[in-house]
Amino acid sequence: MPELRKDPIVGRWVIIATDRARRPVAPPHEPFPASDKPCPFCAGNEEHTPHEILAYRAPGSRPDQPGWRVRVVPNKFPALQIEGDLNKRGEGIYDKMNGIGAHEVILECPFHEASLTNLTEDNIRELLWVYRDRLVDLKKDPRLVYGMVFKNVGAAAGASLEHSHSQLIVTPIVPINVWEEMTGALEFFNYRGRCIFCDMIHQEESSEKRVVLNTPNFLAFCPYAARFPFETWILPKHHNSHFENIQKIEVDELGTVLKSLLMKLEVALEKPAYNYIIHTSPFDTQALPHYHWHLEVIPRLTRVAGFEWGTGFYINPVPPEQAAGILREIEVDPSGGRRA
Amino acid sequence: MPELRKDPIVGRWVIIATDRARRPVAPPHEPFPASDKPCPFCAGNEEHTPHEILAYRAPGSRPDQPGWRVRVVPNKFPALQIEGDLNKRGEGIYDKMNGIGAHEVILECPFHEASLTNLTEDNIRELLWVYRDRLVDLKKDPRLVYGMVFKNVGAAAGASLEHSHSQLIVTPIVPINVWEEMTGALEFFNYRGRCIFCDMIHQEESSEKRVVLNTPNFLAFCPYAARFPFETWILPKHHNSHFENIQKIEVDELGTVLKSLLMKLEVALEKPAYNYIIHTSPFDTQALPHYHWHLEVIPRLTRVAGFEWGTGFYINPVPPEQAAGILREIEVDPSGGRRA
Repeated sequence: MPELRKDPIVGRWVIIATDRARRPVAPPHEPFPASDKPCPFCAGNEEHTPHEILAYRAPGSRPDQPGWRVRVVPNKFPALQIEGDLNKRGEGIYDKMNGIGAHEVILECPFHEASLTNLTEDNIRELLWVYRDRLVDLKKDPRLVYGMVFKNVGAAAGASLEHSHSQLIVTPIVPINVWEEMTGALEFFNYRGRCIFCDMIHQEESSEKRVVLNTPNFLAFCPYAARFPFETWILPKHHNSHFENIQKIEVDELGTVLKSLLMKLEVALEKPAYNYIIHTSPFDTQALPHYHWHLEVIPRLTRVAGFEWGTGFYINPVPPEQAAGILREIEVDPSGGRRA
Repeated sequence: MPELRKDPIVGRWVIIATDRARRPVAPPHEPFPASDKPCPFCAGNEEHTPHEILAYRAPGSRPDQPGWRVRVVPNKFPALQIEGDLNKRGEGIYDKMNGIGAHEVILECPFHEASLTNLTEDNIRELLWVYRDRLVDLKKDPRLVYGMVFKNVGAAAGASLEHSHSQLIVTPIVPINVWEEMTGALEFFNYRGRCIFCDMIHQEESSEKRVVLNTPNFLAFCPYAARFPFETWILPKHHNSHFENIQKIEVDELGTVLKSLLMKLEVALEKPAYNYIIHTSPFDTQALPHYHWHLEVIPRLTRVAGFEWGTGFYINPVPPEQAAGILREIEVDPSGGRRA
């Protein structure tokens, strides 16, 4: 059972693996498979993954058998484990709890494909529905407080397998970055009476210089204080604090927006390693007037050095206005793709 | 002139390069030089660096000429610039200021050497005095608020040149990570009336299981909630909030402790890439009862993936007790080394 430990100074929680059987410096995930090994995420190789939790599949096809389009399985090397009671304890001045939570992998297509942009918009919409289904389901567990959907593409972004996939980690505490975002947004709301994300949308829409994509329901832009070159956020224009409350019309549109943005990044940066992350509200909150779910895409082009680690003070060599200008001008056609 | 921009949600400042002449995706520093180019950090190649700010050098030797043991020069590609007035402005809901500050490089030895551990303890003591001299000097500038000394070793840790060197970035604001550390430490002090770092020293000294080195004036240990495998902190045992107030007897001892710790890490992890960072108090503070300067060493063994970026919630596959046990058992002799 992994252990959650709290840094007593800043309140940051860390997942400490306590399984000492593993090699000390081994990466926490499997390496990219050698070319002679079957990809565990391809259809037909279902026996190489744990039993599926959810799959969108062809009528009549059976669990853990081919016929699926999107498939969710537990992570074989989970950072957190779903079994057991949540047990909070002290250890002198330190605080810890056992590593209860969930760690799931979402296989985005049955065939071996590295890039989400090679799937159809409909497949990406289904992926978004899967994100939502899992959050709605895991939210029912009273031990769990937060669900984080993310995607790592490329080894430089921390991916351990090539086959296009997302992950979901569900934790018994609110992660510190989200907590700080919510706290900052609440301070703004208390002072101004408005959602700071809604304010950003209005300012970005009117200035246009950092906008990448502008559709009826979504705005994609490079944020004013972007930490990384070509960092881009997608925000729903209608205020909504919880991703899982997304409307169907928004899912339809987000499938196109997300695919188009990723296609633009692939052209501009020649298929970069990247991460995307959905920031949403904690499970135990109702609709919040001050918080606004969003999706952050971070290409991994620069190395993060000692200065950034030590200070949280990032150096971005590409102004977001320049990045947005480049991305805006790249024309892409999201209508193609291989249907899963 | 670079620009400092504040994230309106969490209050994080980012340095945005606004010099559009550079290529959009170029790294902010020079690449490792090709083998046929002279190393700009070696003695005899002083013309390849800007004019020196400070050097400890042989009597009679002249500035920007050989004869130095440690040498400080402005960074050729500075993240911040020293000339100009500090100008704070708004841009709608956003806040910015011009990128006033200092960015210096500290060349740790005149000969071409990649590892600090191949220098003598005396040379490392001189390096520590140089850190202090520069902080004391830059502190006099009323536009500047914080000085961060750090060292990147290896490309994976963000180093752009092999020759052993440190850096100093001085900023007009307190970086967010330091601010959060100080805020957390103040909360603890207000509640308990004690310095949280002093409490950690007492608990770590008595439990011993995370201790790597224990000397009369310093404790090196792997922190309870270590974010990274083999992350190790060095703390002075006597409470002191400002690194620049270090006693001579402490510098003498820290030279040995720092060299010994780095030698242990080099043995355990086979010369890993790493960063170290000195966390100290802002320039505009007097002696603080709640904060305690320290040096954090972070080997760069694991990739940081989307989950960590999105949440600030790290997954550490090596328990700090295990890392400390390995480091504690490795015997090293810091008394050798090539004298600069």
